[in-house]
Amino acid sequence: MNRQQLIHQIFTKKTFLCVGLDTDISKIPEHLKNETDPIFAFNKAIIDATAPYCVAYKPNLAFYESYGLKGMMAFEKTIQYLKNHYPTHFIIADAKRGDIGNTSKMYARTFFEEYDLDSVTVAPYMGEDSVNPFLEYNGKWVILLALTSNKGSHDFQLTEDKSGERLFEKVLKNSQEWGTPENLMYVVGATQGRMFEDIRRIAPEHFLLVPGVGAQGGSLQEVCKYGMTKDCGLLVNSSRGIIYAGKGTDFAEAAARKAREMQEEMAVELNRSVR
Amino acid sequence: MNRQQLIHQIFTKKTFLCVGLDTDISKIPEHLKNETDPIFAFNKAIIDATAPYCVAYKPNLAFYESYGLKGMMAFEKTIQYLKNHYPTHFIIADAKRGDIGNTSKMYARTFFEEYDLDSVTVAPYMGEDSVNPFLEYNGKWVILLALTSNKGSHDFQLTEDKSGERLFEKVLKNSQEWGTPENLMYVVGATQGRMFEDIRRIAPEHFLLVPGVGAQGGSLQEVCKYGMTKDCGLLVNSSRGIIYAGKGTDFAEAAARKAREMQEEMAVELNRSVR
Repeated sequence: MNRQQLIHQIFTKKTFLCVGLDTDISKIPEHLKNETDPIFAFNKAIIDATAPYCVAYKPNLAFYESYGLKGMMAFEKTIQYLKNHYPTHFIIADAKRGDIGNTSKMYARTFFEEYDLDSVTVAPYMGEDSVNPFLEYNGKWVILLALTSNKGSHDFQLTEDKSGERLFEKVLKNSQEWGTPENLMYVVGATQGRMFEDIRRIAPEHFLLVPGVGAQGGSLQEVCKYGMTKDCGLLVNSSRGIIYAGKGTDFAEAAARKAREMQEEMAVELNRSVR
Repeated sequence: MNRQQLIHQIFTKKTFLCVGLDTDISKIPEHLKNETDPIFAFNKAIIDATAPYCVAYKPNLAFYESYGLKGMMAFEKTIQYLKNHYPTHFIIADAKRGDIGNTSKMYARTFFEEYDLDSVTVAPYMGEDSVNPFLEYNGKWVILLALTSNKGSHDFQLTEDKSGERLFEKVLKNSQEWGTPENLMYVVGATQGRMFEDIRRIAPEHFLLVPGVGAQGGSLQEVCKYGMTKDCGLLVNSSRGIIYAGKGTDFAEAAARKAREMQEEMAVELNRSVR
């Protein structure tokens, strides 16, 4: 999906919500555990319930990998289901990959050829040649870690160099020589509040994937105030806050309610922004 | 495998070689392509041929993931084969993972419970809470990226902060508050030459996993001169240089020859070091 198509989806559906599919078998409702593939059954119900309110889905590979082959089968089925039934939803493989060139090339092959997804999250520590192989695919996106939502983001990402430039700023600047706003987004955690101003000074146009609203405590209003652009420029993710909103047989309805709530808040923010 | 057991293996077999299983189906000998599982058939032959000359195997997840479920089945079979036939070899999942705490916990579960491997490579960008979940497993190891072997290592890893400390040095220092020489190693590329002196100043005891000898141009002698400790303290990896040493039906013999050559050079280096 290209940038124009993504922006079109956002303004048509009045939402920039991304639903994170961090499906943990220990947290899904009891009655699903007798299904042949409980993870897929859960995902399918969540997707059907939330699709009207979001523009993107973000399966988190860690959760699928942790169940071995069974987990990866559930991942593949989820992807196929999304592609067949919701082809206008943007799919993000949340995988945080990144390695030397010939290895990153294999990861790019995995997510962009084997699974044919729209985008993958990539870690910047190993630099340009670890990111470039992902950028060589037409119509596909790298979502590069810049300033993450967790406590550990302070350990290295905020380190200032001699000129006062922080590591996440260097990542934002250098990587703009590798990709463009058409194939490169950044992860910026919602918990970083006013840092969005600093981010937008360096990357005024790039889309930002924003985790950390909800369970991690970030504020949607603050993210929009400092991070939204005329093209929206945001994909705000919620995982646990939506998919585990309910624990009973009505879990999908509870997820839909939570997603619709967020969509409604997002519609207000989109209306507020000048287009 | 704990530190003492690893050191014992190294000095008994007079080798600190790690064979990287970066198995690429487009590079394996033609005659294997008719096998039911060509990737596993290749790995099995390479393992049987090289086991006497190495102490560790490092399957690179990217290569297996890129073939989807079939690839992951080959990965699982390779791991099982190693565990059943070569239980004293140390196994490294080269996966470069790292994410917020609850997600890193799932990755740790994948590699340490689902596959029960000895160690996994982890990227430090997201800081302490992205690494700690891997350190909570008794007898398991984190191998944290410090200074990698690729060109892009210069993009961020060498950035100096206000006090002149480079990012990789900060990673080495901070992470020593998270783990110990008993459960934490570092990736340091062989291409970094005399930087090993700087590394040893900060991390005098930790084992280093050293890629980049061979195809990437690093020198074993230089690595040993500046990086070896009284406990050896090194696992030197070679992937392409060994596993693709031959292209015909004698590929396993060619791999064995190459691995033995390296083992012999390593024996010289171990004898040279005072224990």
